[in-house]
Amino acid sequence: MKVGILFGSQSDLEVMQGAADCLKQFDLEYSAHILSAHRVPELLEETLQQFEKDGYGVIIAGAGLAAHLPGVVASQTTLPVIGVPINAGKNAIANGMDALLSIVQMPKSIPVATVGINNSFNAAMLAVQILAIKNSKLRAKLHDFRQKMKADFQKNINVKL
Amino acid sequence: MKVGILFGSQSDLEVMQGAADCLKQFDLEYSAHILSAHRVPELLEETLQQFEKDGYGVIIAGAGLAAHLPGVVASQTTLPVIGVPINAGKNAIANGMDALLSIVQMPKSIPVATVGINNSFNAAMLAVQILAIKNSKLRAKLHDFRQKMKADFQKNINVKL
Amino acid sequence: MKVGILFGSQSDLEVMQGAADCLKQFDLEYSAHILSAHRVPELLEETLQQFEKDGYGVIIAGAGLAAHLPGVVASQTTLPVIGVPINAGKNAIANGMDALLSIVQMPKSIPVATVGINNSFNAAMLAVQILAIKNSKLRAKLHDFRQKMKADFQKNINVKL
Amino acid sequence: MKVGILFGSQSDLEVMQGAADCLKQFDLEYSAHILSAHRVPELLEETLQQFEKDGYGVIIAGAGLAAHLPGVVASQTTLPVIGVPINAGKNAIANGMDALLSIVQMPKSIPVATVGINNSFNAAMLAVQILAIKNSKLRAKLHDFRQKMKADFQKNINVKL
Amino acid sequence: MKVGILFGSQSDLEVMQGAADCLKQFDLEYSAHILSAHRVPELLEETLQQFEKDGYGVIIAGAGLAAHLPGVVASQTTLPVIGVPINAGKNAIANGMDALLSIVQMPKSIPVATVGINNSFNAAMLAVQILAIKNSKLRAKLHDFRQKMKADFQKNINVKL
Amino acid sequence: MKVGILFGSQSDLEVMQGAADCLKQFDLEYSAHILSAHRVPELLEETLQQFEKDGYGVIIAGAGLAAHLPGVVASQTTLPVIGVPINAGKNAIANGMDALLSIVQMPKSIPVATVGINNSFNAAMLAVQILAIKNSKLRAKLHDFRQKMKADFQKNINVKL
Amino acid sequence: MKVGILFGSQSDLEVMQGAADCLKQFDLEYSAHILSAHRVPELLEETLQQFEKDGYGVIIAGAGLAAHLPGVVASQTTLPVIGVPINAGKNAIANGMDALLSIVQMPKSIPVATVGINNSFNAAMLAVQILAIKNSKLRAKLHDFRQKMKADFQKNINVKL
Amino acid sequence: MKVGILFGSQSDLEVMQGAADCLKQFDLEYSAHILSAHRVPELLEETLQQFEKDGYGVIIAGAGLAAHLPGVVASQTTLPVIGVPINAGKNAIANGMDALLSIVQMPKSIPVATVGINNSFNAAMLAVQILAIKNSKLRAKLHDFRQKMKADFQKNINVKL
Repeated sequence: MKVGILFGSQSDLEVMQGAADCLKQFDLEYSAHILSAHRVPELLEETLQQFEKDGYGVIIAGAGLAAHLPGVVASQTTLPVIGVPINAGKNAIANGMDALLSIVQMPKSIPVATVGINNSFNAAMLAVQILAIKNSKLRAKLHDFRQKMKADFQKNINVKL
Repeated sequence: MKVGILFGSQSDLEVMQGAADCLKQFDLEYSAHILSAHRVPELLEETLQQFEKDGYGVIIAGAGLAAHLPGVVASQTTLPVIGVPINAGKNAIANGMDALLSIVQMPKSIPVATVGINNSFNAAMLAVQILAIKNSKLRAKLHDFRQKMKADFQKNINVKL
Repeated sequence: MKVGILFGSQSDLEVMQGAADCLKQFDLEYSAHILSAHRVPELLEETLQQFEKDGYGVIIAGAGLAAHLPGVVASQTTLPVIGVPINAGKNAIANGMDALLSIVQMPKSIPVATVGINNSFNAAMLAVQILAIKNSKLRAKLHDFRQKMKADFQKNINVKL
Repeated sequence: MKVGILFGSQSDLEVMQGAADCLKQFDLEYSAHILSAHRVPELLEETLQQFEKDGYGVIIAGAGLAAHLPGVVASQTTLPVIGVPINAGKNAIANGMDALLSIVQMPKSIPVATVGINNSFNAAMLAVQILAIKNSKLRAKLHDFRQKMKADFQKNINVKL
Repeated sequence: MKVGILFGSQSDLEVMQGAADCLKQFDLEYSAHILSAHRVPELLEETLQQFEKDGYGVIIAGAGLAAHLPGVVASQTTLPVIGVPINAGKNAIANGMDALLSIVQMPKSIPVATVGINNSFNAAMLAVQILAIKNSKLRAKLHDFRQKMKADFQKNINVKL
Repeated sequence: MKVGILFGSQSDLEVMQGAADCLKQFDLEYSAHILSAHRVPELLEETLQQFEKDGYGVIIAGAGLAAHLPGVVASQTTLPVIGVPINAGKNAIANGMDALLSIVQMPKSIPVATVGINNSFNAAMLAVQILAIKNSKLRAKLHDFRQKMKADFQKNINVKL
Repeated sequence: MKVGILFGSQSDLEVMQGAADCLKQFDLEYSAHILSAHRVPELLEETLQQFEKDGYGVIIAGAGLAAHLPGVVASQTTLPVIGVPINAGKNAIANGMDALLSIVQMPKSIPVATVGINNSFNAAMLAVQILAIKNSKLRAKLHDFRQKMKADFQKNINVKL
Repeated sequence: MKVGILFGSQSDLEVMQGAADCLKQFDLEYSAHILSAHRVPELLEETLQQFEKDGYGVIIAGAGLAAHLPGVVASQTTLPVIGVPINAGKNAIANGMDALLSIVQMPKSIPVATVGINNSFNAAMLAVQILAIKNSKLRAKLHDFRQKMKADFQKNINVKL
């Protein structure tokens, strides 16, 4: 199953690259699109319908400031939607608290699975975990990833201060 | 010209009553609807199209928590949209800061005119001011309202502590 | 597949009831346990291992204040973990901002899918969406739930202010 | 109808340029003045009276920190007033939260239409929307602007991560 | 010398009573007025001019939400102005943080001496300290007050837990 | 070794009771005093000197709002000082964030060991842990306390939602 | 009468220079000292006693982070104390919110007159206003300063955007 | 007795160096390890058991963002645990408020002694104070350190502004 990656602006590209980097490590297919709930709502709707037809399994949506994209996506699909709050720099309140609160405080029945500020890698990791539930091969990869992470981590635990 | 009042839930009714109270004082027509950007997006779209056909001039939208309604409305109309952040009580961060940030931090080109927490009266007052720009009769009423406010205020300025 | 519901204290029971209410509507099996990452770490570990053996698909974890439970669960399983920040009342900062930040700001590779303050219903809805990806019967129920939500919502959209 | 642009200091000029840029795109006349509610209250009063005489339709006021300018303007005119909170850098709390709260939390009957931090472009867009209500030519331009925004946006929606 | 006490609404009366209570203990004359920078700016201006003519020495101004009163007062007098942020309850952000930031973050050259949320007693105490600088009798009273405070405090320092 | 418990006002008594409750469970001696860094600085100094003479091992200090007591204590002793931020209710910012920041952000070389809002029980538990380092009997009690806590917790882990 | 300027560290020097700059413009005498409530409490006490003997009229105290200096000074003198919250950079919460809350939220009877973040110029301006109450020559200077500020401001009010 | 220093990533090294610098001044032995509650929980458990066997007296744990490390350590040992919140830069909320709240708001019975953002020097100073309680030689060193700090401070108290 494929993963859809959506975000609102060319300027979010660097932050959202982390999602693609993670999905590549698990050989998962994905497509990325710059879309906006406020600027091209019709195109967003079309894309989401196409995602459902093409059998996508999870959608990752990144957004900053008022950050409505993940919630609007969630209102138009029943696929799980993962939201990435993006720190929009000097126009953002308290390093991205505005985006975080806009994404996570969704009303009853329309959830967005929210991850940390700028943490698109974790959004993709969550997508992998979700798709692995009934995919034993992916689950094995996930297990290997964790073991490798632990092994790599253990190489450098002693440090000279 | 009429004013549209939108909000997302029966529980916001008491807060939004203030908008109607204000509009009545200026004999402005309005209609109020409970609508949700996340639950009935199609119905929201229809209502907004009907507003434009019926020659509405301003739209007031109240919302709590992730509070996307005002922004989604703004993305689907070129009428001025006024947003009222609603304090959703014990599930809200810092007494409605979540709703405030979700409404005010809109992206470039799609503004929402935001007023204070729960202050739907001010949202309607803003609508009156907007409609008064080219309506000399309404402008006169607005002027009278201010004068009366001042006169009423002056009656009670001396206080015994 | 079953859903595991974990939380740290008897006092969180009322908040977490929402998760069970949602899962019942979708006829999903679940089990609920009061466990603590800080007080009974060994028992938590055992329970998580049992979940994996018993083929659980998703884990929901609710916590307040420092709110480590969801993150610690996520570090011990590769199943998707959904975190519910709980507003711990007068000992909490800004109505649960402490719990929210402790749950959502997880390090790279160990995500927790975070939902809104006290919103355990949404945590369960997310679990349903995740389990529905490859379960067409559940997916149909999810579709019906949305349609019913829309239909119910539409009955009460006109309101008299 | 003309638009008045007011702000408190030479150092806000770069942020407020966005308002002028927007108004130019719609061929709206405007004048800009550096004025302060605290330093030259008399001059502010005069300027506002001149605005009313000259038939201005909307006033945009930008301010940082305690950010009283928009509210003081609103207390002296019945024209709609749009406030732009400005992030005053290292002397500001949480990237402009001080200015935002000072502008948006106005008392009953004296609203300020508040936009996002540093987002003077949106303040002007709101002014355009307000003036377009009874100006079919401006309304058409607004419609074209939205269509062009959508068309431009659509050119770059596919992205390679 | 007299102390002027200003605040914006009947509802602030209980909070501002503390200022009067303190001034009475020092036998200082004061007068209290409900005035608003936004609703009756002309009346505010007159009152401040009268204060200067009548030889008032210090002005205390309490305000909630956008809380412009103390700053506007400070811009119209060169007397020291003391600001009391008032927690406006469920419409306020974070128990009065909005009022605090609006009062304290004044621009260069126009200070407001800010005290704690709802702490009008301390505003008056500050007024006493200011007036005592060149008033040896008042200074002696202030000294006695401190000594009595210490003596009273010492009576109850041992406590049984 | 004894533990000193200090706090600034009769109104903090209920919150600070938790510290005494904890110390009693470990049969540790303690004395409690209401003292204030701002009101009776001389008496505070004397008490701290007496603590050192009487061989006290740890000092617990609770305070709300500006919450200077723990830091001032820390500057006058080299004993470990544990600070308890107290939520001072409607006059406090964001449920005690003011006290927390005042206590924890101490300058280099003068630390205060800070615990959670109102969590005086944990302050005392920390005191027990500190005193147990070189007291094998106390260490054993601490071990038993943990084991009992785990055992008690385990009795109620299964819950019916 | 002289003004005392106190602050806690060499690194605050640049921020506090603003106070001296202001006092020089009014030909007021002042002395500046680096002192710390936590590191050299005895020396602080001595300095304050010397201030009282030497007839100082006002004390300005700047501090960052836990920022106890102004409050401790206020507890040891009955002279008016003006506090300047300093943004301690990357170790400070939300650009100096920690210092602001520690300084402004003083307990009943021991006020600190707090000004904006880093705004030592305003602290000195407040000192001038306080000393001018019974000093007609200084009052005249203050009046001239205001007039000059207005005149300077008016030279640049028209701006080309 | 030795002090254990733990932190979660190579990138925290510079911040945590302050702890080692302090311990060296007191000739205390320490060992430092990069460990993670989420990535290598087993290794963390082993290390803590080894600490107890080797007679360590205090553990310092630094962490950023969700910052669970100190709390998880505290749940696995009865030694006193000191937590250092680390400002994780542009991905952190409000300069480290996320880490601070995650560390300090621990549940009843499992305290973490929290110090200021990035202030690992103070964490170590606290460890010294704890170990000095029953070590008269260390206590004397601590006393000398304070005296030297005061003496050094006094050399530079007069400053020319």
